[in-house]
Amino acid sequence: METHPDLIRPYPLTRYPKLIINAALTGMVATRKDSPHVPLTADEIVADAARCRDAGAAIVHLHARGKDGKPVCEKAYYREIIEGVRDRCPDLIVCASTSGRVHNAFAQRSDVLALTGRARPDMASLTLGSLNFPKSASVTDPDMIRQLAESMKAAGIVPELEVFDTSMLYTMKEMIRTGILTPPFYCNLLLGSLFSTPATLFNLACLVKDMPYETLWAAAGIGIFQLKMNTAAILMGGHVRVGLEDSLYYDAEKTEPATNPGLVERIARLAETLGRKIATPAEARQMIGLAPA
Amino acid sequence: METHPDLIRPYPLTRYPKLIINAALTGMVATRKDSPHVPLTADEIVADAARCRDAGAAIVHLHARGKDGKPVCEKAYYREIIEGVRDRCPDLIVCASTSGRVHNAFAQRSDVLALTGRARPDMASLTLGSLNFPKSASVTDPDMIRQLAESMKAAGIVPELEVFDTSMLYTMKEMIRTGILTPPFYCNLLLGSLFSTPATLFNLACLVKDMPYETLWAAAGIGIFQLKMNTAAILMGGHVRVGLEDSLYYDAEKTEPATNPGLVERIARLAETLGRKIATPAEARQMIGLAPA
Repeated sequence: METHPDLIRPYPLTRYPKLIINAALTGMVATRKDSPHVPLTADEIVADAARCRDAGAAIVHLHARGKDGKPVCEKAYYREIIEGVRDRCPDLIVCASTSGRVHNAFAQRSDVLALTGRARPDMASLTLGSLNFPKSASVTDPDMIRQLAESMKAAGIVPELEVFDTSMLYTMKEMIRTGILTPPFYCNLLLGSLFSTPATLFNLACLVKDMPYETLWAAAGIGIFQLKMNTAAILMGGHVRVGLEDSLYYDAEKTEPATNPGLVERIARLAETLGRKIATPAEARQMIGLAPA
Repeated sequence: METHPDLIRPYPLTRYPKLIINAALTGMVATRKDSPHVPLTADEIVADAARCRDAGAAIVHLHARGKDGKPVCEKAYYREIIEGVRDRCPDLIVCASTSGRVHNAFAQRSDVLALTGRARPDMASLTLGSLNFPKSASVTDPDMIRQLAESMKAAGIVPELEVFDTSMLYTMKEMIRTGILTPPFYCNLLLGSLFSTPATLFNLACLVKDMPYETLWAAAGIGIFQLKMNTAAILMGGHVRVGLEDSLYYDAEKTEPATNPGLVERIARLAETLGRKIATPAEARQMIGLAPA
């Protein structure tokens, strides 16, 4: 109940849980041509993670890139980034992508889940269905979802559930009912991608009302809708996913190229104005149900 | 359609209409003991109106008080305030209350509508139903609504429709259907009063979805919910009602007594961060469909 207080009686924002900021640093799409600030190499990603932590982030959502800047899925790439983050920011929560956008075989998507010791990610993304991205389908079929979920559970990795519409919330509930998903539940709601759920407050509020009980949820807005969805989540007692993976600019006119720490800092400032306190990585670990660093 | 773009396809906030800030300065409840900053005399109200205009307000929503600080409804009191506002801020939109909270006879509630010339208010409040306030019923029965609406229309005063729940939106639609209400439509949605619609984004978004086409709407939050509802309205392409009438403090813990210009300024700053431009009084007149000053 604490996780979505809007459902019963609204609280003042100061009594909402502290705000967990999840920084999505890189993604699979942006190139150096698209943004001078998107971190691509392991060193760049680690440095950006540390700056985002200083600005208020508790989680970093990571994608790996190869020498040519193209997305890669092999665990060796992730190991370098994750160990770098552990060295610089031992408490930061590390979430690795299992996206099927480029490499869609189970062996590829699950490779990062085989990392052990300090290289093991605390969390890993788990998209709960298939949908259309602007230029292609993003396919995660029921069997893939189940296999990835089981691999995460076996490795003690908490899924970062990626939900794009109400069908994926239903999928989440079916997986809870059949025991494939067990607490803790952390769920990103992603709105505003072209051909996906429009980034309106009505749509966001409907998804939140439909959310399984005791889920920690965050909202992400794609492109120009990032700030809108993030601010709405702050107002609703939710959490935020923010970063260059979802939006490369500060402004809708795309005149001001953003940086990851700059985007995190803007959210932290807004949260302060609106009365939400920021969760430290240690506090976020406790809220999500992760082991201390 | 321009007035609630969230319904079709969301726009970036920079393409929403400019934000109209309506400053509700005094109300009928707060005393000098409750707040050192609430304006009670005509001089105090006029001075506060001017400061709020400088901070970004386009409309002032006025209640009159007598020498003893108690609410009064006679037009002589309103004349002094309104002429004072015209002297100081000729362009500011003046909205007078016809509240039945203290004086509930039609002759009392409608007295302010008889003002003429420059003392005539541009707008007047029209509550579209009966509801419970925290300690009493607020009664505006169907006949009273009709009589007030007809008096306003006869005087060329635009109603500021006060809507507390979905039944009042239905009343608005019935009045449009029967020709009692005619454009322009400006509607305040008031959420968060005890025993009234809870100030959740879900409830606000449902009301906005249910709003008659081409209505200019603003959101108000009572008490600790003012900032939340105002911010949500900024995100949704709506407008805001803000001020000491609805909330005497900046913070939910009630440690920082607010001022009217301070509350307006905070909203103007938030709007800037979120990408909404502020409407001047002249621009707001045009958007609402009022004659130029």
